[in-house]
Formats: sequence, structure tokens, C-alpha cells
Amino acid sequence: MPNAQPGQPFSTRRLAHEAGVHRPLQAGICGTKKAGAESIVVSGGYKDDEDYGDVIVYTGHGGQDGAGNQVSNQSLDDSGNAALVTSCLEGLPVRVIRGWQGESAFAPLEGYRYDGLYRVTSYGSKFGIDGFLIWQFRMEAYDGTPMPETHQQEELSESPEEPPTDGGEKQPPSGNEEPGRVTTTVQRIVRSSAVKRQVKQWHDNRCQICELRIEGPGGSYSEGAHIQALGSPHNGPDTTGNVLCLCPTCHVMLDLGVIVLGDDLAIIRDGAVAGALRTHPKHAIDLGV
Amino acid sequence: MPNAQPGQPFSTRRLAHEAGVHRPLQAGICGTKKAGAESIVVSGGYKDDEDYGDVIVYTGHGGQDGAGNQVSNQSLDDSGNAALVTSCLEGLPVRVIRGWQGESAFAPLEGYRYDGLYRVTSYGSKFGIDGFLIWQFRMEAYDGTPMPETHQQEELSESPEEPPTDGGEKQPPSGNEEPGRVTTTVQRIVRSSAVKRQVKQWHDNRCQICELRIEGPGGSYSEGAHIQALGSPHNGPDTTGNVLCLCPTCHVMLDLGVIVLGDDLAIIRDGAVAGALRTHPKHAIDLGV
Repeated sequence: MPNAQPGQPFSTRRLAHEAGVHRPLQAGICGTKKAGAESIVVSGGYKDDEDYGDVIVYTGHGGQDGAGNQVSNQSLDDSGNAALVTSCLEGLPVRVIRGWQGESAFAPLEGYRYDGLYRVTSYGSKFGIDGFLIWQFRMEAYDGTPMPETHQQEELSESPEEPPTDGGEKQPPSGNEEPGRVTTTVQRIVRSSAVKRQVKQWHDNRCQICELRIEGPGGSYSEGAHIQALGSPHNGPDTTGNVLCLCPTCHVMLDLGVIVLGDDLAIIRDGAVAGALRTHPKHAIDLGV
Repeated sequence: MPNAQPGQPFSTRRLAHEAGVHRPLQAGICGTKKAGAESIVVSGGYKDDEDYGDVIVYTGHGGQDGAGNQVSNQSLDDSGNAALVTSCLEGLPVRVIRGWQGESAFAPLEGYRYDGLYRVTSYGSKFGIDGFLIWQFRMEAYDGTPMPETHQQEELSESPEEPPTDGGEKQPPSGNEEPGRVTTTVQRIVRSSAVKRQVKQWHDNRCQICELRIEGPGGSYSEGAHIQALGSPHNGPDTTGNVLCLCPTCHVMLDLGVIVLGDDLAIIRDGAVAGALRTHPKHAIDLGV
């Protein structure tokens, strides 16, 4: 991680490169399909982009001619786009840099600005303004990321639309419990550590309990679940032996004690053996007993 | 929410009561089974408690005689314990107050101290030191909650144990990506807003897509999922019409676009209709189209 604070300006791409904030000098997306995207630059290159400060609808890379016109479809095979898919599926944070070329009120007036960490909360494809297929990535600021600086633009006569709230406590409730920040759209994707990613790779994202593998466009999704919680009282280690590859539902059931693992890797539900945990030759499981 | 900062001292329970930090004058748990626990006091009343600062293993209420000896089993029927179960199942935050009677290094030397927001990440029962069944709740500090003040005690010769790390980038990885804070145990339980709780109640925590209901001890678990994300670009409202009651896996599949809803509430997977969303008379669903 570079040592930069949200809001920090960089007058040129080269300075942002040297600080490690965004390493490529040209590309808007820094990352690989395997590791995910580590940073993006939002700088007005794609007219379908939308920037609401703490939420960005970021258009993927590709399909443009040298003059910046969209002339063909985008693809998830593009390594930048595939990197953003991985960031979403793995729940990995992405550094956001805004450039002066951006057309929103959140673009800096000059140069570039590091605006902190965002996550990719969803992605999808649509036909863009120019009539070609584009991929878009919804990026949301983490709770700790400050709202970026703004400058009023002439064409912005209103503030961005907010969902309607009524503030009352009627039945049924209709208010937004935490208005303002987008924290109400709870991030559902569970962040992977290096340890979890290894376990998920061994099992190819297939649940070791129920065998489900969720297939999203561009990649599959699973969760790394600790058998024993880290830290006290169980002091489970953050090692592959203490992590399982599970689907979201089996993960919750393990955490809540609805599913318990027996010493022989039996899956115990309602006090009865309901099967055995699928294993992998490289994945030695440590029940800590 | 009371207007108190983590670390703020209260010399008496009455002052904490008046500030709204912990409303009961005697009880250690403030809350109800329906609403969850809003605050707890950690003050040494139960010898099975463990306090590691950002992680607390908090023993439930009940089973003690007037002298504070454990003389019978605890139950989840106790309203305080049931409240903590709800806080876990709903992912709701709990205020933690530490009292001078606590025996850990994190107890204040005098009076009481508000220590910020924690979440109940899991719970379970065991036979305690005195040989009776107790319920325990694992409480973890939110990322934004500062580590509580500590004072060195004579009986503490070492700092609390940390999981082993090696810091290397070997294959397979064995290091802790974020050592120190307990943020590596990712919170799996999705926090409910008032709107989500209403929808989950209508459906009795049963998934509207696959009919699964996860039955934990003391309560069932489901997740409120927004059909359209809040805020831009979809501007989905935070209303019951925009929320579904789903199991964790169907929630992820909806977010990733693996499952799509048709105009007639058809469940579409892989481009084909795979069923219809179960509805409820009071739950008018708004697809925003």
C-alpha cells in the first residue's frame, strides 16, 4: 500500500506513479485478473461514467478508437475489466484517483487526486450511449473514506438525487436508517485474504460442504471461512488449515453453529452426521483439537 | 444513539443511565429479544468472561444466586441473552461499557467507561467454570472503535496472545494480512435496517427464492437484499418494496446478476425462468421498471 492520504494531490500521472498510487502511466486500470485491480483513474475517458462522489459507475476498458469514440463492444477478457471483476468477487479494495479531465463536480480542477479506497459492489453489461456493449462497475467508498472535494459546476443546477425518506417511524418502516453515506447498501461480498484465496483456489470455488459453485459473469464466487475464529478465545490461526472454501449459506451456518465439524471431518447437523467435508490433497485441515 | 465518545468516563451507573449510554441501573444487558441488545456492561460479574480489548467473550445472564455464585444453567429464554442472540442474527451494533469491577487490564480503575460499538459475531453454550451451562457471546469491536485504554496489572505478565504470523509471501500463504486488529475475521452476518427487518418478519426469515430458513439456536437468520442498489445509478429506494428476504447464497447470486427478476416476479437463471418469487400479501414488490 502506498503511503498516501485521501485528498492528496498529484500534479501529474508520473508523480502518482512514483508514489505508487497508480502505477501505469497511461492505463486507467492497474491490476490483473489473478490479483484484482489495485487502482483506477476516473478521468472522463468514457462518457457512460457516472460520478456521485461516494458512488462511481465506472465504465470498463476497451472498444474505443484512437479519438476516444466507442466503436466496438467491450469484453471481460480485457485484463483491466477482468481485474475489476476479481476485485468484486474477492471483495478487494481499489484505490481511486480522479483526474482533471473528469466531467463531474468531483473531478479536481487540475492534475490528479488520490481519493481513497472503494470496493466494487457489483458489475454488469449494458449498451452504452454509443450503442455498443460496455461493462460497468459500481464502486462504493468504504466507510472510512472521506467524501471527495467538490467544486460547483455551471451545468449542475441540483445536488445529486437522494432516495426519498420520510423520517417517520410508521409501520411498515420506509425511512433510510442511515441517510447520506451509502453504508445502507451492505457489502455482501466477503473480502479474501491471501490465505483464503489459496484455499478457494484449491477447491476451485466449490463449497466443501454442499458442492455449490456460484458462477458469475467473468468468474466464480466462494467465501473463505475460518473454522475457529481468529484471536481469543479460540485463537484460531490465520492459516490454510483453519480455512474452508464455502458458499455463503454454509458459511453462515458454520458461524452460527448450525453446522459443526466432527473430528473425522464429519459434517454434523441437528446432532446427526449429514456427510463428510470434501477435502483436497494440498489442503490439510486443522480442527485445533 | 447517545452522544458519547468511546473512552468517555461515567463515574456512576446513574450518570451512564442519564447519558443514555446504558439505560438500566442494575442489569448488565439492555435490550429485548425483538429489538436486540443496545448496550452491555462488562464488570466482572461472571467469572467465565474474557476480555481482550477488541474482543470480549461475554457470558450471558442468569443462573446465579444472590452472592454471585453460578448455581443453575443459563437459558436463551432470558430476555437479555435473547437480545444478544438477536443482535448477532440481525448484525446490530451493541454499545460496550466497562466497569471498575472487571478483572481484566481493560477495566477502568474507577467508575465506568463507554468503549464504543461492538458486534456479536457468534454465540454458543458450554459448561462454565462452576459446572453449569452458560451462554457466551463473542463481541468484536468495529473497525472504527478505538482499542480501550489499558492499565498493567500484576497478574498480567504477558500481552494477550496473537495468532502466529510469519510476514512472508511463501506458497501456501500463512501470514495474517492485517495483523493486530481483528478485522481479518470478516463479519459474515449482514446488518438489518428497520426496512429489512420488516421484510424478514413478513417472510419469517424464509428465502423468497429457494425457501431455505437457517435455524440457529435462539432464532432464525435471513438477509434483507435490495433489488436495486441504493443511490445512483439505480436510485433504488430504501423501502420494503425494494427489499427481498433471502438466504445468503441467493443474496450473493442476486447481487452478482446470476439470478435476475423478471417483470412478473419470475426468477431467471441462465436466461431461463427457474420459478417465481414467493410473495406475501403485505409485501408489495417494486421492481422499479
